[in-house]
Amino acid sequence: MGKQAIGVVGLAVMGRNLALNIESRGYAVSVYNRSREKTDELIAEFPDRKLVPTYTLEEFVTSLETPRRILMMVKAGEPTDATIAALKPLLDKGDILIDGGNTPFQDTIRRNQELAKAGFHFIGTGVSGGEEGALKGPSIMPGGQREAYDLVAPILTEIAAKAPDGEPCVAYMGPDGAGHYVKMVHNGIEYGDMQLIAESYAVLSQVAGLSNAELADVYTEWNQGELDSYLIEITSKIFRKKDDETGKDLVDVILDRAAQKGTGKWTSQNALDLGVPLPLITESVFARVLSSLKTQRVAASKVIEGPATKAFSGDRAAFVESVRRALYLSKVISYAQGFAQLRAASDEYKWDLDYGTIAKIFRAGCIIRARFLQKITDAYAHEKTLANLLLDPYFRDIAARYQGALREVVVAAVTAGVPVPTFASAVAYFDGYRSERLPANLVQAQRDFFGAHTFERVDKPGSFHAHWA
Amino acid sequence: MGKQAIGVVGLAVMGRNLALNIESRGYAVSVYNRSREKTDELIAEFPDRKLVPTYTLEEFVTSLETPRRILMMVKAGEPTDATIAALKPLLDKGDILIDGGNTPFQDTIRRNQELAKAGFHFIGTGVSGGEEGALKGPSIMPGGQREAYDLVAPILTEIAAKAPDGEPCVAYMGPDGAGHYVKMVHNGIEYGDMQLIAESYAVLSQVAGLSNAELADVYTEWNQGELDSYLIEITSKIFRKKDDETGKDLVDVILDRAAQKGTGKWTSQNALDLGVPLPLITESVFARVLSSLKTQRVAASKVIEGPATKAFSGDRAAFVESVRRALYLSKVISYAQGFAQLRAASDEYKWDLDYGTIAKIFRAGCIIRARFLQKITDAYAHEKTLANLLLDPYFRDIAARYQGALREVVVAAVTAGVPVPTFASAVAYFDGYRSERLPANLVQAQRDFFGAHTFERVDKPGSFHAHWA
Repeated sequence: MGKQAIGVVGLAVMGRNLALNIESRGYAVSVYNRSREKTDELIAEFPDRKLVPTYTLEEFVTSLETPRRILMMVKAGEPTDATIAALKPLLDKGDILIDGGNTPFQDTIRRNQELAKAGFHFIGTGVSGGEEGALKGPSIMPGGQREAYDLVAPILTEIAAKAPDGEPCVAYMGPDGAGHYVKMVHNGIEYGDMQLIAESYAVLSQVAGLSNAELADVYTEWNQGELDSYLIEITSKIFRKKDDETGKDLVDVILDRAAQKGTGKWTSQNALDLGVPLPLITESVFARVLSSLKTQRVAASKVIEGPATKAFSGDRAAFVESVRRALYLSKVISYAQGFAQLRAASDEYKWDLDYGTIAKIFRAGCIIRARFLQKITDAYAHEKTLANLLLDPYFRDIAARYQGALREVVVAAVTAGVPVPTFASAVAYFDGYRSERLPANLVQAQRDFFGAHTFERVDKPGSFHAHWA
Repeated sequence: MGKQAIGVVGLAVMGRNLALNIESRGYAVSVYNRSREKTDELIAEFPDRKLVPTYTLEEFVTSLETPRRILMMVKAGEPTDATIAALKPLLDKGDILIDGGNTPFQDTIRRNQELAKAGFHFIGTGVSGGEEGALKGPSIMPGGQREAYDLVAPILTEIAAKAPDGEPCVAYMGPDGAGHYVKMVHNGIEYGDMQLIAESYAVLSQVAGLSNAELADVYTEWNQGELDSYLIEITSKIFRKKDDETGKDLVDVILDRAAQKGTGKWTSQNALDLGVPLPLITESVFARVLSSLKTQRVAASKVIEGPATKAFSGDRAAFVESVRRALYLSKVISYAQGFAQLRAASDEYKWDLDYGTIAKIFRAGCIIRARFLQKITDAYAHEKTLANLLLDPYFRDIAARYQGALREVVVAAVTAGVPVPTFASAVAYFDGYRSERLPANLVQAQRDFFGAHTFERVDKPGSFHAHWA
């Protein structure tokens, strides 16, 4: 019997679906899982597919063509280290281990370096698109040795999602942790997108009084235009969904306590380490955390009053359009922050990231897929080292035309007592970024006053200290 | 010759001033510095003080009463570890090492545990108040073994700042890293306070057109009331200060690029780890970072337009009062977040922090010292386990009376294009915290839609998954 071109270790839903995806492109795939039940289940469910079950790692490794291509889809953290440790003695130099898990990029940098010393290639890759994406075509963000990527590129290219123009949503991101880093920022951006949409929902329902049916129509319509994206599409479907048990709109039955799995938090923590402003995504992480304090919020709602409720008296259609503009511009501002972070990370970790390519592979397969990502690709095609997306002509034009609406929506929400942490943060960042002069001169004066931390002057270089007392 | 009750290692400005402070209370103090020049300079400058110079660590250690009390004022990080390693072989069991540096609390936890195993006590203490505080009376936040604290308490109590009611600004915070943790949050709060004041300056000058002289008067007046605090006091002085070289107002000569030393960042990163919302302080950290992008901002200011500038047409005195109220309520909201983080940390790290005592020792000596801290002490005296300061009757009343002003100021700033990231974040947190229902139900619906992450229901316990497609 011939050997297989690739093997998958770990047959939970993501691993299993990726194996099926690879097989569907004409490859025979060796599969292995720590407990044999999952392997047997997969084979029993798909008896006619070219999936080759193996029940020991020795058998698994022996079943593969060399250099071996091994895709690990195990839990991030200790299980990944354990799998690597178990595989390592069985491998030959030049074999390629691929970690497709939800791994912090710092771990990927470490593992890549350790394995490189032993003569093995290590690719850490982001895989976005959930279960369905894994099966039918995810967005894939691989980082590691370039020569190793070239050896797996044909397979990854075939299984990846295809953008509207037919281009596959996979590309080499850069050395060591670059792939997992890009996936982390993707997820941070996803947090921001979801919170922005949630705030648009809050404002439309609580300020303008839209019903769920009306909201479904609004998001359906928005999905035809600039906001065309997977998250807007599913939002429109969510507002139409009925609860099987009660017959109510399901969205009203769902508890307003948002959970998280950590990647948004990692993005914010890394932004703080790099010293790049990422307020919008960070507000979205904190918004989830605040939502989780449901018991406290219910108690607080009984004793802390907000502004008096007023019936909406404006033009509803015009307000809906303002919220659409506010949402689009806030999204632009969020991506401007996220891509500025990619730029800082590329410098810090020496990855030479290609921002246009990153936007390109986000266009399909992944959760944040959206028509507007093409605009980001275009912006970097126009200027490869653009410091901030807000400086690009297309986005500048959007900002010029939509900032009035964003301000209007924030004003309406703040006045009505509807919390809009990310809309408000978007305005603050936008106004801060375009401010030639910020009040940070006072902060520096204070720091020098109480701590002799010195300050710079506007009229000459150097560090100065004043005798304040 | 007799032995000394305490010794100080590290004679940079903080160590030297603390040694002089201790000596001024009647103690003879052994001093040691790695390079002898600093020791000789100190002795030469203060020949009549009871400072005992030592030039080797052996000599230093031998000169101290047992159990030895050794205050280390060296650079945080590797130098602290190196000093501990050098001292350790010279110590006897039961000796007390005190780290008064700007140390991350995780390091203090580690060192406390390592030294405890070897039979030594280790206190990590926050010291706030800058150079002058160190000399005349800082706020001191010690954590570590209780019995070790008791042995240094008499000295710390004598050198600490005294609150208006005469109480010393020092108290036992809790085990291992508790002291450095409280100091970290103190500094995070300080970042928030400074950014809030900076935004009040931006709004008053850019929206209402106040001159520096008028600003000086405003802050002087504010310092007579609820906002009475060290930072408001120095702000009023800053606006009166002239530049010696140019004769201009110094504040206008200072470059608007704020620096930072990391403790604000640590506070935000830890809040993200603990899963407690700390948006205001985090926005203030990002505001400093954004200010540091001066070159980009100047470029952006030339190509990105804001709203058209309008002359202020309202009642100036009324607007100044609104800004005062906005500042005070935002400050309350910031402290509510910071103290909620202390509460989460106390649970997570098992410190049993006493929030009322913490507010008490912040009342004098430290940078955030302020009249209003008494209100926080009072709130916890009233209810020891208060979940959030906003639930306390005094702060609820402030919120009820001042939220209109805060909304008005945010609306004015957003409309005028003046960035107010922390004012806006304060409103969003306030409205989120008092919301019985947030739009997080939509976020959970989206997560379940694309990732089968499940959701909770409003009508019964459990985890549920819908068939969305």
